Amino acid sequence: MYKERQRKQNWKYCIGTGRLGLALQEEYVKHLRQLQEEIGFRYIRGHGLFHDDIGIYQELEMDGVVKPFYNFTYIDRIFDTFLDLDLKPFVEFGFMPRKLASGQQTIFYWQGNVTPPADYQKWAELIQKTVEHFIERYGLDEVLTWPFEVWNEPNLTNFWENADQQAYFKLYEVTAKTVKAIHPDLQVGGPAICGGTDYWVKDFLDFCRDRHVPVDFFSRHAYTSQKPEVTPDYYYQELEPPENMLEQFLSVKEMIKASDFADLPFHITEFNTSYSPINPIHDTLINATYLAKILAVAGDIVDSFSYWTFSDVFEESGIPKSQFHGGFGLIALNQIPKPTYHLFSFFNQLGETELYRDDQLLLTKKADGTIIALAWNLVMEKGTGFEKTIRFTLPIESDQIWFKQRKRLTERHGNPWGVWKQLGRPRFPTQTQIKLLQASSQPLIETEQLESGQVIEQIQLEKNELTLLTYLPIKDETPTYPGLDDGKLVSY
Amino acid sequence: MYKERQRKQNWKYCIGTGRLGLALQEEYVKHLRQLQEEIGFRYIRGHGLFHDDIGIYQELEMDGVVKPFYNFTYIDRIFDTFLDLDLKPFVEFGFMPRKLASGQQTIFYWQGNVTPPADYQKWAELIQKTVEHFIERYGLDEVLTWPFEVWNEPNLTNFWENADQQAYFKLYEVTAKTVKAIHPDLQVGGPAICGGTDYWVKDFLDFCRDRHVPVDFFSRHAYTSQKPEVTPDYYYQELEPPENMLEQFLSVKEMIKASDFADLPFHITEFNTSYSPINPIHDTLINATYLAKILAVAGDIVDSFSYWTFSDVFEESGIPKSQFHGGFGLIALNQIPKPTYHLFSFFNQLGETELYRDDQLLLTKKADGTIIALAWNLVMEKGTGFEKTIRFTLPIESDQIWFKQRKRLTERHGNPWGVWKQLGRPRFPTQTQIKLLQASSQPLIETEQLESGQVIEQIQLEKNELTLLTYLPIKDETPTYPGLDDGKLVSY
Amino acid sequence: MYKERQRKQNWKYCIGTGRLGLALQEEYVKHLRQLQEEIGFRYIRGHGLFHDDIGIYQELEMDGVVKPFYNFTYIDRIFDTFLDLDLKPFVEFGFMPRKLASGQQTIFYWQGNVTPPADYQKWAELIQKTVEHFIERYGLDEVLTWPFEVWNEPNLTNFWENADQQAYFKLYEVTAKTVKAIHPDLQVGGPAICGGTDYWVKDFLDFCRDRHVPVDFFSRHAYTSQKPEVTPDYYYQELEPPENMLEQFLSVKEMIKASDFADLPFHITEFNTSYSPINPIHDTLINATYLAKILAVAGDIVDSFSYWTFSDVFEESGIPKSQFHGGFGLIALNQIPKPTYHLFSFFNQLGETELYRDDQLLLTKKADGTIIALAWNLVMEKGTGFEKTIRFTLPIESDQIWFKQRKRLTERHGNPWGVWKQLGRPRFPTQTQIKLLQASSQPLIETEQLESGQVIEQIQLEKNELTLLTYLPIKDETPTYPGLDDGKLVSY
Amino acid sequence: MYKERQRKQNWKYCIGTGRLGLALQEEYVKHLRQLQEEIGFRYIRGHGLFHDDIGIYQELEMDGVVKPFYNFTYIDRIFDTFLDLDLKPFVEFGFMPRKLASGQQTIFYWQGNVTPPADYQKWAELIQKTVEHFIERYGLDEVLTWPFEVWNEPNLTNFWENADQQAYFKLYEVTAKTVKAIHPDLQVGGPAICGGTDYWVKDFLDFCRDRHVPVDFFSRHAYTSQKPEVTPDYYYQELEPPENMLEQFLSVKEMIKASDFADLPFHITEFNTSYSPINPIHDTLINATYLAKILAVAGDIVDSFSYWTFSDVFEESGIPKSQFHGGFGLIALNQIPKPTYHLFSFFNQLGETELYRDDQLLLTKKADGTIIALAWNLVMEKGTGFEKTIRFTLPIESDQIWFKQRKRLTERHGNPWGVWKQLGRPRFPTQTQIKLLQASSQPLIETEQLESGQVIEQIQLEKNELTLLTYLPIKDETPTYPGLDDGKLVSY
Repeated sequence: MYKERQRKQNWKYCIGTGRLGLALQEEYVKHLRQLQEEIGFRYIRGHGLFHDDIGIYQELEMDGVVKPFYNFTYIDRIFDTFLDLDLKPFVEFGFMPRKLASGQQTIFYWQGNVTPPADYQKWAELIQKTVEHFIERYGLDEVLTWPFEVWNEPNLTNFWENADQQAYFKLYEVTAKTVKAIHPDLQVGGPAICGGTDYWVKDFLDFCRDRHVPVDFFSRHAYTSQKPEVTPDYYYQELEPPENMLEQFLSVKEMIKASDFADLPFHITEFNTSYSPINPIHDTLINATYLAKILAVAGDIVDSFSYWTFSDVFEESGIPKSQFHGGFGLIALNQIPKPTYHLFSFFNQLGETELYRDDQLLLTKKADGTIIALAWNLVMEKGTGFEKTIRFTLPIESDQIWFKQRKRLTERHGNPWGVWKQLGRPRFPTQTQIKLLQASSQPLIETEQLESGQVIEQIQLEKNELTLLTYLPIKDETPTYPGLDDGKLVSY
Repeated sequence: MYKERQRKQNWKYCIGTGRLGLALQEEYVKHLRQLQEEIGFRYIRGHGLFHDDIGIYQELEMDGVVKPFYNFTYIDRIFDTFLDLDLKPFVEFGFMPRKLASGQQTIFYWQGNVTPPADYQKWAELIQKTVEHFIERYGLDEVLTWPFEVWNEPNLTNFWENADQQAYFKLYEVTAKTVKAIHPDLQVGGPAICGGTDYWVKDFLDFCRDRHVPVDFFSRHAYTSQKPEVTPDYYYQELEPPENMLEQFLSVKEMIKASDFADLPFHITEFNTSYSPINPIHDTLINATYLAKILAVAGDIVDSFSYWTFSDVFEESGIPKSQFHGGFGLIALNQIPKPTYHLFSFFNQLGETELYRDDQLLLTKKADGTIIALAWNLVMEKGTGFEKTIRFTLPIESDQIWFKQRKRLTERHGNPWGVWKQLGRPRFPTQTQIKLLQASSQPLIETEQLESGQVIEQIQLEKNELTLLTYLPIKDETPTYPGLDDGKLVSY
Repeated sequence: MYKERQRKQNWKYCIGTGRLGLALQEEYVKHLRQLQEEIGFRYIRGHGLFHDDIGIYQELEMDGVVKPFYNFTYIDRIFDTFLDLDLKPFVEFGFMPRKLASGQQTIFYWQGNVTPPADYQKWAELIQKTVEHFIERYGLDEVLTWPFEVWNEPNLTNFWENADQQAYFKLYEVTAKTVKAIHPDLQVGGPAICGGTDYWVKDFLDFCRDRHVPVDFFSRHAYTSQKPEVTPDYYYQELEPPENMLEQFLSVKEMIKASDFADLPFHITEFNTSYSPINPIHDTLINATYLAKILAVAGDIVDSFSYWTFSDVFEESGIPKSQFHGGFGLIALNQIPKPTYHLFSFFNQLGETELYRDDQLLLTKKADGTIIALAWNLVMEKGTGFEKTIRFTLPIESDQIWFKQRKRLTERHGNPWGVWKQLGRPRFPTQTQIKLLQASSQPLIETEQLESGQVIEQIQLEKNELTLLTYLPIKDETPTYPGLDDGKLVSY
Repeated sequence: MYKERQRKQNWKYCIGTGRLGLALQEEYVKHLRQLQEEIGFRYIRGHGLFHDDIGIYQELEMDGVVKPFYNFTYIDRIFDTFLDLDLKPFVEFGFMPRKLASGQQTIFYWQGNVTPPADYQKWAELIQKTVEHFIERYGLDEVLTWPFEVWNEPNLTNFWENADQQAYFKLYEVTAKTVKAIHPDLQVGGPAICGGTDYWVKDFLDFCRDRHVPVDFFSRHAYTSQKPEVTPDYYYQELEPPENMLEQFLSVKEMIKASDFADLPFHITEFNTSYSPINPIHDTLINATYLAKILAVAGDIVDSFSYWTFSDVFEESGIPKSQFHGGFGLIALNQIPKPTYHLFSFFNQLGETELYRDDQLLLTKKADGTIIALAWNLVMEKGTGFEKTIRFTLPIESDQIWFKQRKRLTERHGNPWGVWKQLGRPRFPTQTQIKLLQASSQPLIETEQLESGQVIEQIQLEKNELTLLTYLPIKDETPTYPGLDDGKLVSY
């Protein structure tokens, strides 16, 4: 009835994180542990490897001469933590250590320096010593599986001084050649651009071809939010439809195919609805529902797409000022999962075989016969109403008995942001309030036994509801209980 | 408006357990740990201290002479476990070690011997050595807080050979005097009778008076089930109304008051709806709802009443033959809480001050101002319908803002027995089925912000629903967020 | 210099356990968890699958007919526990459920029935339903990796009524054919004999050949203790030299090779020094030292040899009467590891490549260059003295710097039995005493930096000392610390 | 024989920590959890409450006006962590938020601003809002137990601009009065001076008297190191004898007694040998031995003395550049306890009754009869030798049997710094090296049974050895084992 195909797991290939220095924090690690236990991503990517809070690049006077000194105390602790949680680093080289920087320009509350190195020789040595240290500590076989990406969004002036393309290409070339000199099978790539200047795609690949610069993957970012309305504490933005993101992926994919590197792996190393860490959309139900189609489809186009980011332990706009504040995180402060966290969890519960998908339904099956479907009702308009009924045929034989479990994310269930508003939006919730929020952060669960012979499902969805449906084949053992008769129970 | 009084916590003074030897089991300890972390009883009472599976009383040949040997390996492990979980033993002396027994009569699948000692001298020494060992291991101060109860239900022929009252009085006297000889402040009591022969109350107390036998507390059991309809695997029983149990408590209390021991502490060392471990009533929602009034009221009459029992790790009728089988436990096999577990948990969440109570509502308040109410709708008739609306006035000032959380136990939520039926009543559920059952074992949670000025509550209850209502006074911090406007969010 | 060869890991293929019903106990699971975290065996084998404490075989009246009823509640919990700890069952079919037994003869305190089935048809159905249930619960792929062994030591009259060989062959045939009828790739074997009647080897294999009975492996047990001196509480026995056990393995191996099943896998499903669970030898240092050569060599002869048993949670001679009592366990009551536990742990720390071995030394190396040696000084004579110096050449280049760690098991270190004697042999130790015992149960650790150029090691061993030596190649980073001078520290 | 007196527990009243912002880190919390589980301090004190990494003081534009905004996100998380570990904050008000500072002067790698407030009104409001928030979150009863100390070492120019006494007095007065205005029972004190300018004692107390400024306790710091020899990475310093520290305590105590606040509680809110976080002395054995007398005696003089600090998770001199680097911590990086950690642990294992003490011995007893002694052999001279024998009489009756356990800290045992040197001083140790260091970080344990009648102890101590001796009264149960004879065991 349905045509089966293996589901790609690209949606859980990589996850974004706030700057790596935050990985020293206990709250961060708690969120990451929950994420890995429940979902289990393979890679993690974030900024700040060379930022001064981790402090790899330092200088030391020895015998009257000032020399670079490489301090791996913190990065070892961080990567040990990741690997211990079965996460590999998707390494981003950046930003510039203050003592190696050619300029003063910084980005973010935590002041990442975004200027080129003052001395490319020292930059190359920093790359070399760092990667060699990784190999010494974790073994070559392990490090060969880590992608190394050069810088972040150099096509933006706030991330790379003047968005100077030639300066970036120089940085890329020095870096890539340094990495490959350590071992030719280490993987290096870029240019980690955001959308808006896609002529960089051809420019970058042509540059690599012309200068014989190694490139093992191409990386880009993608967001679908429009120009923001800026208020003191928040950004508000309209969103393009979800298809817009898929189109971004496809159009760059076409450019790569048209290049001399047609088969180059293509990683979306950041994506989300809004690129702003103070847009409340990230806390809402619609953020999850909106992304459902993207998670269902994008893996057919790109090799990975990394949600930006897993946790509200994040400081780009400063220390979070409130329990909910529009942060990117799948998990809010105090370890409270948002609806988008459940979206990823739902995807992780799907079967490994896809039977069918469209704009509101993804139907899958497991090897053990369980059927699992994800259904959603994306409504970007304001107002009430908009319920929808989704009908589909269950791929089941009529004489089998089925148990059905439904997990529902709605405005009233699995929506801690809504409960937080009911609580009066406490900035610094008490332990009592935190427990109330956590208790309300789980999907609503409904169960039933399907009527025998039922093959047509009709699922009623609320506005922006996201529902996971599990159909488990069962055997009715009731006849094996001699004398059983519930009707003899009081009130039954 | 309401008259405040301190709530008594007698409902969580003591909890019943299957025979003590089961406390060696890992599954048992997991259930008990959950119970203590979420509720926190003070004492635990069960049969089998002297049963041969714990094996305290043994015989050893030394220099050609057979002498008693006391083996404390297992009971030490068991009491260490209890104390580690902040539970004290409510010690029941019994049943008879096989080698000390005068007869062959046993009770239960696990064959507890219910005959008098063959040698009262040896029985006395067993009591003495055992209690002295407890004192040596746990300290006198600790053991002075442990009640020692002599035997179990000697008024029944299956628990005490011939239900021989004189034989019991002799056992009691020997035991009580042995205990008191160790230390006069050790607490000893009895007669642990079940209902039906309450002339034992006067007989026992007169005996103690006449013979100058020490008695520090009086104990009795209480169930409200009628004559069973017996099927191969199940007992089915009608129940008396809940008031019947309170009347049992009161009538015995009156007898004690009328005796020479008017102020004697009075412990119900077992209570439940049905006394049968294969009556499915224990797995149902109505079992919880039925007991709500009893938990609310009984503490005013008796010093404790101990629910029989906390876990389906229990073997009186044999090894459990199925996931649900009518066992007494608050927690079913595979660590699945039943509705009655939540009843106790709800009671534990109530405030320490009682404002009001009737047959369907218990209204309380905490020191921090939180108001917590328990409402229930007990319906012992069969059939559908029977919804009920409960109205009450909230003791709140009108200018305060309140957050309200409702936790609901209904047939469709927090009812794993119902889900298990939907699953086809699997006897030995798979890990997948266990996880589904656990996921469905929690109450439904609903939240809202009360409309300003609302002081009259109207709560709609389903048939046999049990609902916990929490009203938290809050402060609306929304005005402190400059530029906040949810209306600018997509779809809101 | 040394000839390298891959070390076989047969020594950790399987571990013995007290009867399976004990696996329900928390203390048992704690010991097993420690064992698996620190060593990590692959299989576990014990008696009692069909014993009535697990209660698989039961009878139920239904519609007036008594039929077999199979209760998997406990065995599911037990096998779930094993698999959760990465242990697979090495299934032993036995002993006989009371209701299926043809006679009354039992073995052990826990009364395992050792008589043939009263009805071979029902026995076959029991095997079939049980194995089918395992497949249903754990999957065919998993169960195909579980060996099924028929009965235990049928060549002894106390384990099999009259040690009746023909009756055993019949049981074996019925069982093996039933298993193979479920799936031809399921593995079945026997006869699980102990030493002393090795004519059974030929008899059994001839029988299988002649009757075309399936056999996938051959199993035997081996102990090296001589006739016991029996006292009320203890067995004392002289031991054959360790080579005796290897000779037992070899001689049976030769018999198998000479049979029509020359390549049949050969499992020693039980081995130890003494076969008595009340021989204090199991608690001593010499038990570990004695077994060192056997663990080093036996894997070259047999496919597995399973130490009997991992824990003193064991009841064959009754409930343990004392902290130490001569039990088989690697781990004593209260989770205290004995010297033989450390022997296995030391073997687990060795490198995967063997360089050299003799009667007192096993020299190995890891892929990362670490050299690890086990040295021992077995002295079976009484009296003091007997120190020995072991010399060997380290396979190292002279310009490399090495760090050396030595872990020593001696009478004074890693010997909790000795500390227990100093404590006055408390039968039921207090928590304070337990902590003292645990604190003294670890090997003594000594460290140093090898002198540069040192290639000859001379290790001084005390009587019966067992020592693990680890040589780690290091880099001296001292020159990278500017200004470092320990001589400027107070007192250095 | 000995005169008994209750031991004061002032030595564990308070512990020092690196700046509070570090308490967000996972490694920090792991160290603190170990400390609390094994020792259990009551208070914790560190710098940086108002530092910008915690970011309490911020500014926000609202309706066009810039106003202070108080962000409690991080401090709530930090204090929740402390209280969850049974630690109360000993609150130090400081340093100055950058936006509130009058100047640019900072201290430490982490740049704490040490200038007076630009606006005392805003400072007072910061104090008020912060303390009020603590009361709202943790309750008044809790916060009334927290001491509030004003600033840190204002008598040093690098901690307080110009060490301006009058400016400090102004800051103190504003702060103290603000605190007392919230609640008169809140405790406030100062001046947290270090040694060297003790005329501040009289000046400060006279000021409080003259200006009627509240003061609830007096605080000072104490170190015993002399002028440093400075090298690029380390400070080396001679130490005054331990008595020097006790004299510092006494002389200030006398000044307080002579003031108008004679009974004022006196807290040493920091002490250690060296005040430098890069003096390797902190990693050594002698650091522990040196402090033994101080821990034994100082509690008789001062109300608390707070070791500076519990962990090498510390950044005053930058990110630690190596596993061992001379940090203050009781616990080194990678959770490796130093000898001084064990000194505190040994003190925690002593009995609650003191029998005797001198310069090398502290003899105590527990309520259960256990005798526990700490003995040490402080040698500040260089060179080998210096063993010493300590003799003392055990307060025991001759017919009692005793078990003796000795825990030894020597250069070869419980000295991970020494092992690290053997490993070649790896800056960033591998996981293998970390495990080797952890395995070597525990004291050597020796046990024996005392010979009957022994009452004179002679303990041989190595140079700078620190030894804990535990004497446990025991009962010899050997006679209760019929047939026991170790001589029948092989080789015994």
